[in-house]
Amino acid sequence: MPTRSQSEADKVAASGFAEVYEPVKPYLEELDVFLQSQVALLEPEIQEHVRYVFGHSGKRLRPMLVAYSGWQGPAANSTAELVRLGSIIELVHLATLVHDDILDEADTRHRQETAAKKFGPAAAVLIGDVLFSHALKLAAEFPTTEVCRVVAQATARVCAGEIAQTYQRGEVNYSRDFYYRVIQLKTAELFEVACALGAKVAGYSDAFSEAAGAFGRHLGIAYQIFDDLVDLYAEESMIGKTLGTDLEKGKFTLPLLLLLEKVEPAERDDLLARFRSGDTSVVDDFTRRLHDFPIFEEVVGVFEAELAKATDAVAPFSELAPVSEMQKIAGLVRAQLSRLPAAAQ
Amino acid sequence: MPTRSQSEADKVAASGFAEVYEPVKPYLEELDVFLQSQVALLEPEIQEHVRYVFGHSGKRLRPMLVAYSGWQGPAANSTAELVRLGSIIELVHLATLVHDDILDEADTRHRQETAAKKFGPAAAVLIGDVLFSHALKLAAEFPTTEVCRVVAQATARVCAGEIAQTYQRGEVNYSRDFYYRVIQLKTAELFEVACALGAKVAGYSDAFSEAAGAFGRHLGIAYQIFDDLVDLYAEESMIGKTLGTDLEKGKFTLPLLLLLEKVEPAERDDLLARFRSGDTSVVDDFTRRLHDFPIFEEVVGVFEAELAKATDAVAPFSELAPVSEMQKIAGLVRAQLSRLPAAAQ
Repeated sequence: MPTRSQSEADKVAASGFAEVYEPVKPYLEELDVFLQSQVALLEPEIQEHVRYVFGHSGKRLRPMLVAYSGWQGPAANSTAELVRLGSIIELVHLATLVHDDILDEADTRHRQETAAKKFGPAAAVLIGDVLFSHALKLAAEFPTTEVCRVVAQATARVCAGEIAQTYQRGEVNYSRDFYYRVIQLKTAELFEVACALGAKVAGYSDAFSEAAGAFGRHLGIAYQIFDDLVDLYAEESMIGKTLGTDLEKGKFTLPLLLLLEKVEPAERDDLLARFRSGDTSVVDDFTRRLHDFPIFEEVVGVFEAELAKATDAVAPFSELAPVSEMQKIAGLVRAQLSRLPAAAQ
Repeated sequence: MPTRSQSEADKVAASGFAEVYEPVKPYLEELDVFLQSQVALLEPEIQEHVRYVFGHSGKRLRPMLVAYSGWQGPAANSTAELVRLGSIIELVHLATLVHDDILDEADTRHRQETAAKKFGPAAAVLIGDVLFSHALKLAAEFPTTEVCRVVAQATARVCAGEIAQTYQRGEVNYSRDFYYRVIQLKTAELFEVACALGAKVAGYSDAFSEAAGAFGRHLGIAYQIFDDLVDLYAEESMIGKTLGTDLEKGKFTLPLLLLLEKVEPAERDDLLARFRSGDTSVVDDFTRRLHDFPIFEEVVGVFEAELAKATDAVAPFSELAPVSEMQKIAGLVRAQLSRLPAAAQ
């Protein structure tokens, strides 16, 4: 579930997001210049590796959230502080991806070879460590300890999510509580921090920073739930891979958890027993049974409720420049639903 | 060379260091209580792993340096700040050991199974990440960003040392510059930070903090050079393993570098060619040839010069409480030489 397959949602979302990328394009360009400038500060032996990771690493969603939460109009947005903050959060995100790919023994991400595959797992350990420690160095350049504290805490939480997920494999924890705990830690945490610190560093009040954090958290959860839907309800041609990949990797996404709640205990126990025994044909049974229940609709309901919580969180601050932009982002995430095949809906 | 075989020096040094451990015993006990209390703050799934690492992790040399550099007399030394600082530096140190053991595919450390061996490399990636991020969280609890900045920087440098070392393997860089660069990064850096921040956090002046940092740096280099001597000149019974293990791991320690400078170019090229081709009998030739030159004496000279630089650095501050303690530590490190067999001397 989480970070692992975000790339799938990314692919589906790509063109749909052009509208939100446009206003922060100058910011994202400066961010890339800044990230590239940091490579030169690393040990010569590792620069090529880090450059590779920067060049094959998705769409800078988290820095984009930094830019929007600290939004002060098109001209004023690329302050050095916001660029540094976005870079810090992106570095932490990339570090966790590089290490996650070692754990998952993943060969590709964003249709490119992972660092673990290209340079070997040992190098990937070091690349992740360098990205982490460089992020914290940059965080310590802010005048107060707040950025450092929040970023270190978020890093610890993202790790915690990976730990929870790694150690449940084989044992299968299919409670919704566990599902929410993992996506909160692995995905929503950095979305939340990007928004809360973006607002803070741009000089907005603590009250708005907190609201922006809540916006980021719920947007992150919604984003992850959309990712779950893509894995099970998209058309294969659209995402360039077979459906149900999350389950093959042992990840019980929200639609699957709902299915397990709906079938009779005997069927549930049978499905889980076959899953545990490594019977791969169980994936087809799961996906077939999904369509016997109104699960898609229920998951969409949860997805929309999260988006509503996101927009509600910042609604009281509608006089502030970032809010209309943030509402737009939430709207675009909601609009992604229409990109799923009508059959699912 | 560096961290990898510090445990060997630790073993030899163990009893000789009792004298410096005694005064800071209450501090080290509080440190262990603090570290154990931190375990409960981590994700339940990883607590057992972290407890294992804490329980099999050497002698808390770096926290000891924190306590001595911030020394204010026996009663006043276990302040919460110094305990937290010592814990932060120990956590970073342990994180790097856990990750290094993945890279080195090491099975044992301090005669115990490494985390990578006991829990598998994937778990070891996560354990290291958790230790790193928890260290930085604690660092951000200090009132200013200084501890965070210095610790993040030191973490980046320790990684850089591991990178430099990892990537030279196979290529064999046998310059002294490269040797010093690696031990500066991998060993001396955390010794320096322990001393500089220990003095700072205890309220001593910037000037003394800087001097204490220089003390730590040179002490760290000396400590590493002593470790090099142990690997080649100790008696096998004393260290419980074969001599020349560093070279077997591809690590050119100072005595070996000096040997390569002293033999004729033809012999040097032959030794290196055989080393590169994986001819393991070359280790015996290296160790045999060592005794044909006064290399032991020369290395001892370098070792003593580093200790002199360490004590000189803090000498101008002799009125401060920490200094006589720090000089004592340097004296005890020097005294370790007498523990090597007379044959070597």
